Amino acid sequence: MDALLVTALPNVRYLSGFTGSNAAILLTPREATLFTDPRYTIQSAQECDCRVTITKNHLLPAVESAISRRKLKRIGIERDRLTFQAYDFLREKLPLGVEITPITAAVETLRMVKSPEEITRIRRSVNTNSKAFTAALTRLRPGMSENDLAAELDFQMRRHGAEGSAFETIVASGARAALPHARPTRNRIEPDQLLLIDMGATQDGYASDMTRTVFVGSAKSEWKRRYRAVLEAQLAAIAAIRAGVAAGKPDREARRVLAAHGLDKEFTHSTGHGLGLEIHEPPRIGKKETTILQAGMAITVEPGIYLKDKGGIRIEDTVLVTESGCEILTPTTKDLTVF
Amino acid sequence: MDALLVTALPNVRYLSGFTGSNAAILLTPREATLFTDPRYTIQSAQECDCRVTITKNHLLPAVESAISRRKLKRIGIERDRLTFQAYDFLREKLPLGVEITPITAAVETLRMVKSPEEITRIRRSVNTNSKAFTAALTRLRPGMSENDLAAELDFQMRRHGAEGSAFETIVASGARAALPHARPTRNRIEPDQLLLIDMGATQDGYASDMTRTVFVGSAKSEWKRRYRAVLEAQLAAIAAIRAGVAAGKPDREARRVLAAHGLDKEFTHSTGHGLGLEIHEPPRIGKKETTILQAGMAITVEPGIYLKDKGGIRIEDTVLVTESGCEILTPTTKDLTVF
Repeated sequence: MDALLVTALPNVRYLSGFTGSNAAILLTPREATLFTDPRYTIQSAQECDCRVTITKNHLLPAVESAISRRKLKRIGIERDRLTFQAYDFLREKLPLGVEITPITAAVETLRMVKSPEEITRIRRSVNTNSKAFTAALTRLRPGMSENDLAAELDFQMRRHGAEGSAFETIVASGARAALPHARPTRNRIEPDQLLLIDMGATQDGYASDMTRTVFVGSAKSEWKRRYRAVLEAQLAAIAAIRAGVAAGKPDREARRVLAAHGLDKEFTHSTGHGLGLEIHEPPRIGKKETTILQAGMAITVEPGIYLKDKGGIRIEDTVLVTESGCEILTPTTKDLTVF
Repeated sequence: MDALLVTALPNVRYLSGFTGSNAAILLTPREATLFTDPRYTIQSAQECDCRVTITKNHLLPAVESAISRRKLKRIGIERDRLTFQAYDFLREKLPLGVEITPITAAVETLRMVKSPEEITRIRRSVNTNSKAFTAALTRLRPGMSENDLAAELDFQMRRHGAEGSAFETIVASGARAALPHARPTRNRIEPDQLLLIDMGATQDGYASDMTRTVFVGSAKSEWKRRYRAVLEAQLAAIAAIRAGVAAGKPDREARRVLAAHGLDKEFTHSTGHGLGLEIHEPPRIGKKETTILQAGMAITVEPGIYLKDKGGIRIEDTVLVTESGCEILTPTTKDLTVF
């Protein structure tokens, strides 16, 4: 390969430090060139120490002429990060003899194992997120809407140092907790119901991710039993994590525990995912995944069960894979909590 | 065309009402089929009245087999919304004889002119955004950090009914206002400085967008002069908008006014953009754009000037194109304001 064209913004940021919303990097063995537009002239000079080309309108014509001018012949592209349109433009405009090679997850694979600096940032993001959870929950009152609580959670993330939330905060009460990705609504949080909160901060660019399911008022004994089953599954998954183990292992452990409780059919998603500059990164923690876990990977562990029209429970921590096991970064308690 | 494969999520939502984070629609002249994953089994049944196929893991294999089974031969794809990887998968897996035709902005073009229901939602989003601005600014105190004010602005959007912010809120004080897309920092907002705020809400799925530049403490006369120049440019652009006019016209008007003040070189971006389910939609309001404005388009008008290491001014409204001109939806004053 003579050069790799990096078009995914988190990959651009990882390689260059550039945080703007429109950029690409042309990476050769000798140098990196960042392409961005005039909105970022000042910012790119502050953030990057690589060569920067500022280009009006679209970036790709400038990238194309840089490739042609330098007579680069074999160009790697990010196959799952580049649009068909961008590929088609390059294929049409690049000189005859230039070969475009689609590459999968080149930079993403580098990003899976975090550097000490990245781990520091993830730790900080996780702590901010947990502090925000605690601060917002002290303001929880029956009758408050899901929207109001979500607004309070997001506000507290910012107050504690986050740039914002890493994804749309989920606050789902009662039967709505059966929707794994429920958006908060104007519905009021009523007593004697489940309350599922899934939230993550972005701080210094790095994501955190946590889910807690709590009880408002009192908890019915059947839901207490289900809560203990999900917690047991989550702890079994965590116990299965260590460097050298396949990413499928913790997922299978969680399913095994839920099956013993007759709840495995209600667990409709995978157990977790990596996170870092993005909220979803490889590795995926799913049943058949063969990626080998390595020390320095930051992943979520989040089994859940969903009973249509009744409710749902999910418990999620962010953990750091180590040689001997894993460190649970999330400090928030998982004891069954009644507010 | 036998079918159009719609993969851009805002287009999926526009066509089906589905608000989840993973979906595609296969659209034939006779019917629409939504593909999503088991996390959204319940939600897709609630939101969509089209046929729904729930598929584990990736969506494309299910889409491919639906195309094959129905013997569809000519399939349109969204060329700027589909990854190269997805295109490559379809090209390889679809039966011989199936022709893939890349299409540009088919659904986006439909989306440019808003329905009365969509205009109602945009109006509501714009009003929420302006209310949040007013509520947050009453809490502005010198010494407050950009981050704190951004958190307050976002909190107020939620409190007034938004799902959240449509983009990362920009709060840039003093020299940082020279960065058109500055992220808020821990920097304190000091007296006798410019303060640029660019914010937008998402409410019922629809975006709003507004920028105001205000003065904290007192305003230097040179900056007052520049403020009046930018406002004059913004009003000239607005005066040029009406159904039947090319989208380049308002941009050229804004530039003409800034040139008369010797400030056109400092205006480094285009004048505006459409908005709706996304914060950036066609038409682009840029110098050479030939798209004809139509009644029912919702667009931003946001000229700005940026002086490196000194500061910047941008003034932005969301407006609705009408037959005879445009309606400025944003109710917030543009009078030079000193806090």
